Amino acid sequence: MEKKIALTGIKPTGLPHIGNYIGAIRPALELSQTCEARYFIADYHALNSVKNAADLRQMTLEIAAAWLACGLDPQKVLIYKQSQVPETFELMTLLLAFTPKGLMNRAHAYKAMLQKNKDEDNEPDFGVNMGLFTYPVLMAADILLFDTDYVPVGNDQFQHVEMACDIAQSFNFVYGCEGFRIPQPMAQEETKTVVGLDGRKMSKSYGNTIPLFVGEKELRKLVMRIVTNSQTMEEPKDPDICSIFSLYKVFATPDEINDLRQLYIQGGMGWGHAKQALYEKMNEELTPLRARYEYLMSHQDYIHEILNDGSHRAHKLATTKMAILRQIIGVT
Amino acid sequence: MEKKIALTGIKPTGLPHIGNYIGAIRPALELSQTCEARYFIADYHALNSVKNAADLRQMTLEIAAAWLACGLDPQKVLIYKQSQVPETFELMTLLLAFTPKGLMNRAHAYKAMLQKNKDEDNEPDFGVNMGLFTYPVLMAADILLFDTDYVPVGNDQFQHVEMACDIAQSFNFVYGCEGFRIPQPMAQEETKTVVGLDGRKMSKSYGNTIPLFVGEKELRKLVMRIVTNSQTMEEPKDPDICSIFSLYKVFATPDEINDLRQLYIQGGMGWGHAKQALYEKMNEELTPLRARYEYLMSHQDYIHEILNDGSHRAHKLATTKMAILRQIIGVT
Repeated sequence: MEKKIALTGIKPTGLPHIGNYIGAIRPALELSQTCEARYFIADYHALNSVKNAADLRQMTLEIAAAWLACGLDPQKVLIYKQSQVPETFELMTLLLAFTPKGLMNRAHAYKAMLQKNKDEDNEPDFGVNMGLFTYPVLMAADILLFDTDYVPVGNDQFQHVEMACDIAQSFNFVYGCEGFRIPQPMAQEETKTVVGLDGRKMSKSYGNTIPLFVGEKELRKLVMRIVTNSQTMEEPKDPDICSIFSLYKVFATPDEINDLRQLYIQGGMGWGHAKQALYEKMNEELTPLRARYEYLMSHQDYIHEILNDGSHRAHKLATTKMAILRQIIGVT
Repeated sequence: MEKKIALTGIKPTGLPHIGNYIGAIRPALELSQTCEARYFIADYHALNSVKNAADLRQMTLEIAAAWLACGLDPQKVLIYKQSQVPETFELMTLLLAFTPKGLMNRAHAYKAMLQKNKDEDNEPDFGVNMGLFTYPVLMAADILLFDTDYVPVGNDQFQHVEMACDIAQSFNFVYGCEGFRIPQPMAQEETKTVVGLDGRKMSKSYGNTIPLFVGEKELRKLVMRIVTNSQTMEEPKDPDICSIFSLYKVFATPDEINDLRQLYIQGGMGWGHAKQALYEKMNEELTPLRARYEYLMSHQDYIHEILNDGSHRAHKLATTKMAILRQIIGVT
């Protein structure tokens, strides 16, 4: 049986942290075991916020290196740059004609901007650019161009995949054909939410992250800064309300997790011990990633080569698909 | 000195009538005497209203044949299909990131839809699709991709060219460079407005048109249907309030116009005589156009060849321009 196609978009807007790694990168890479997994760097999406060429180039390189370092194998999966598959933009133009404006008015990200402007007594569309407003249509083009079956998404992107379905169905209905395969959002497990240094969800906006490729010393320093309660060493501790233990579970084996759980419950273990255990497990998993990331960033030609090669393959697939669509609508 | 570049968009939404010929086609073709004139068939624009492949193909062929029949010389000017210059769509995606949504909210065509929906007690965005809403951005891409100096437009399109200027200036400002040449709208003379059979402006929506390629007999029949007043043959007549004379002026030489003016003023001329004179002058100009149109429509491969050749040349120009823009924003 043919493998299902799963597509993951990667926005080049800064280096990933542990939360991204556990919540998005690792599960997205696992998809390649069951699906034909494809990954693209959404550089034109990034243009809405990154309007500096040097920054965009650097961020694109870094994010490609990050995913490659995390285990993305360009021999086995497809990785490409959105900007090198120009059929994406032709398809977006096509899809715009099948997208009611009302659908875009209901997009969460746009509605959040409207609310913010209302709260701050601004004009409703203050600071909204058309790139943001049409973002769901560009994302639909990304998805539909490659006959995608599954789109792994967080909660905030669920609606965008549903919109892609709506637009695709409208096109298929108008032309009475299966021009587009209808994609499905694939929810990322909630349990994969990672806590940050202060116990809240790890997020750049909270300033509580552990960067993925930070050096050993800095990594240890950050782990030691994880906020705990003031229980003494002697007291038994509850692992299930502890940030350290929550992170440990993500990196350790079931046996190791069980062992540390016992130490928590029986008392006599200080926070320093738990933090050291966490640091060691993290460092064990992250050391090869860090090394590979550093290697890649000092061999940028190699990254370019990988992206060019993948983009070339993606472009070929896209050309075939777009030729079919052009026949359907009658521009060829 | 280098010639200025003038770009004319041609929407494939039906065969032209005399009003289009006099008001738009003839002046647009005259541009090639003073400018480097370029013409494109806006088939992706048309997709907003024409969602049937056979219709879109037929309309594209017909409108290309119409302009060629009217004197567009593919050896001297560039004619291409929008859909065959895919850089247009990449550029639109780029421009979306530099277009405030507020600018689109103020577009006349969109505001007219809002007003209509208000009048009819509909939701504000009822029946508005994103193709319509983003139309000015796609038009900006058409214009800016080719370093256009002049865009000949009717009153209804003036604002769109101004929007293209705004977007281009915003881009140039952000990147501190002259990435885009700033275009200028070129107003088509008001005097070129042509009256229809009933004395109002000739327009499909009034049902008062004379199709450009109609046969001789049908042409004469239509001219004979032009509405006049009920003055008798003997009475002197005022040429400056007469539809027949108004049309005659468009097709006749200054001497011929003067002669007919005398006949009007001195009296003794019936409407039938004036109509016959008009028919003869029109038929004289239109006969070779009609023949050429019919020849082209029975040699469709030749039309395709012309469009493919022009599109190939336009695509080359567009590739060069887009490569520069991609460097500026940092996706290459």
